[in-house]
Amino acid sequence: MTQQQRDLAHQLLRDSPLDLGGDVHVQRPLLEQLLTAHQPPADVLTERVTLGGVPAVAIDIADVESEGVLLFFHGGVFALGSANGSVGLVADLARRTRMRAVTADYRLAPEHPFPAAIEDAVAIYRALVDQEGGPERIVIGGESAGANLAVATLLAAGAAGLPQPAAGLLMSPWSDLTVTGDSLLTKADADPKLTAAGLRIRALEYAAGADPKNPLISPIFADLTGLPPLLVQVGSHEVLLDDAIRLAARAASDDVAVTLDVTPGVPHVFQAFAAFLEEGDTALTRAAEFLRAQVAA
Amino acid sequence: MTQQQRDLAHQLLRDSPLDLGGDVHVQRPLLEQLLTAHQPPADVLTERVTLGGVPAVAIDIADVESEGVLLFFHGGVFALGSANGSVGLVADLARRTRMRAVTADYRLAPEHPFPAAIEDAVAIYRALVDQEGGPERIVIGGESAGANLAVATLLAAGAAGLPQPAAGLLMSPWSDLTVTGDSLLTKADADPKLTAAGLRIRALEYAAGADPKNPLISPIFADLTGLPPLLVQVGSHEVLLDDAIRLAARAASDDVAVTLDVTPGVPHVFQAFAAFLEEGDTALTRAAEFLRAQVAA
Repeated sequence: MTQQQRDLAHQLLRDSPLDLGGDVHVQRPLLEQLLTAHQPPADVLTERVTLGGVPAVAIDIADVESEGVLLFFHGGVFALGSANGSVGLVADLARRTRMRAVTADYRLAPEHPFPAAIEDAVAIYRALVDQEGGPERIVIGGESAGANLAVATLLAAGAAGLPQPAAGLLMSPWSDLTVTGDSLLTKADADPKLTAAGLRIRALEYAAGADPKNPLISPIFADLTGLPPLLVQVGSHEVLLDDAIRLAARAASDDVAVTLDVTPGVPHVFQAFAAFLEEGDTALTRAAEFLRAQVAA
Repeated sequence: MTQQQRDLAHQLLRDSPLDLGGDVHVQRPLLEQLLTAHQPPADVLTERVTLGGVPAVAIDIADVESEGVLLFFHGGVFALGSANGSVGLVADLARRTRMRAVTADYRLAPEHPFPAAIEDAVAIYRALVDQEGGPERIVIGGESAGANLAVATLLAAGAAGLPQPAAGLLMSPWSDLTVTGDSLLTKADADPKLTAAGLRIRALEYAAGADPKNPLISPIFADLTGLPPLLVQVGSHEVLLDDAIRLAARAASDDVAVTLDVTPGVPHVFQAFAAFLEEGDTALTRAAEFLRAQVAA
C-alpha cells in the first residue's frame, strides 16, 4: 500500500509544471496553486497578523488550548512560497503539537536578497519572545529554504543577544547554497522535482553577491554551538539528502543535541503529503512528539 | 546536575588503567573488571547457553514475559570484552524492551581475526531465526566493535539467504577500520578513552591481512540496501563520532530507514553509565522504544 502512496507523491511532483529555477512571476502562482489545492479542515482557524513589523499567518486549531508557539518558515528556494501556501502543513503540525503556529511571510529574493529574510525572521522571533515573556514555550521550524532560514534565525538571534527557543525542526533543509552535496548527482534520478541547476539559479539570486559560504547563507559552514535540540527530517529520494546529513553532522560536531531522521523512498518535504502518504503522517507525529518533549523539558 | 554526571563518566574513563591498544592479556581482565564492578539487580536472570555452536549468555528479567529477542554483540575493539561483561548494559535493554536478550561470546582477535567473529554472529543469528520460527520478533544490536559486527551480521546473513530481523540498534559504532574519520582529530581532546593509535593497532590485528575497506570489516564502505530500520546512537565526545555519522549517511543513501541520535557532551557508549548518567538512561529508553516499535510494525 505505501509503495502506491510513494509513487503517487512522486508522480504529483513529476507531473507538476512547477520549475523551481524558472521565472518567479510564473512559478509563484504555480506553487501557490499546488499548495492550496486542498482546503484545510474547518477547525483550522487562520488569521493574518503582523509581528515585529512582519506579515504572517497565525494558525489555531479550534477548541485546542495552545501549549506553546511554533514559528515556521515556508520553503520555496528563498524566491517562491508564502505563509498562506504553508497553512496545510503548518496546521498539521499545530494540531499534533497542540501549539499555536505562526508562519511568516518573510521577504523573498530576487526582489529582497540576503539578509532580508533573516532580518524579518529575527524580528518576528523577537516579537514572539516578547509576547510569550520568554523563549521556553517557543519552537522554531521550517522546510527546505525555510529550514535554512530557521537555522540562520537561531544563529542571528544568538548574535543579537536573544535567548534560544526550546527546539528546532528542520524538514529537508537546504543548507548548502554552494550547491555541492554528492546527492545532487547520486539522487538526481530519484528526486522527482529538485535539480542542482535550479538550486544554483536561486542560490545566486539569494546571495546576490555575498559569499555563499557565509554561515548565515549556508549553515553547514556555521558554528552551531549553543543551538537548542534539533530534529532534521529528510527523505532518501532527495538531491538535498546530503544537505540534511551535513547539517546534522555539523550540529553533532558542535555538541548540539541532534537527531537525523531519514525516511527511505520519499521525496523532498514528503510531510506535505501526509494526507495520503503514511510516511508523511508518521514523520509529522515524530516531529510533534519531539517538539512537545522539548517544550516540556 | 547532569554536567556533574557527565564529568563523572569522563573521569571514570580517564582514570581507568584500560588501554584499548594495549596487550590483550592485560587489557581483557581490566575491561572485565570495569564492566562487572556492579552486580546487576536480583531480577536479572542469566544463563550460559550455546546457540548455533556459539557460546552466549541469555538474559531474562524475572516475571517479564518476553515479547521478542534481542541479539547483542559487545564491544572491545574486536579483541576485548565478553558476553558476561555486557550483562549490565544488555539487561538494561532487556528490561526496557521487554525482550529476552542473547549476548554472544563471539571469537576475538588477535587469536581469531576476521571473519571468525562474523561466522559466529551469523551462526547464532541463524539459530535464533530457527528457534523463533522467523525473524519478525528478532532485533539485533551492538556497541562499538559490536555495532560493526551487528551490521556485518545483517550483510552476511542477507548474502547467506537468511531473512533480515526487525531492526538494528547501533551504539557508538566503530564502522571504519581504515581509521580515517575527521573526529579522530577534532574530538581527540574531548574523548576520555579512545585514540586513533589504539584503534589502528586493533584494526590491523582484526583485519589480519584482509583489506580494511572490505565492507564486512568497515561497513561505511558497504552497500546497505535492504537492511532493516536502524537506530544509530552516539555521543559528541567521541573520536568515533564520524564513524556513526558516516554509517548513518551510507544507510540513508542506500534507502534504509535510519535515525542518527546524537547526545552532546557524552563519551563512547555512554548508555553503559545509565545507572547515574541521565543522558544514558534517556538514550536507552529511546532505543527500547525504537526496537519495540519495529517489532510491533
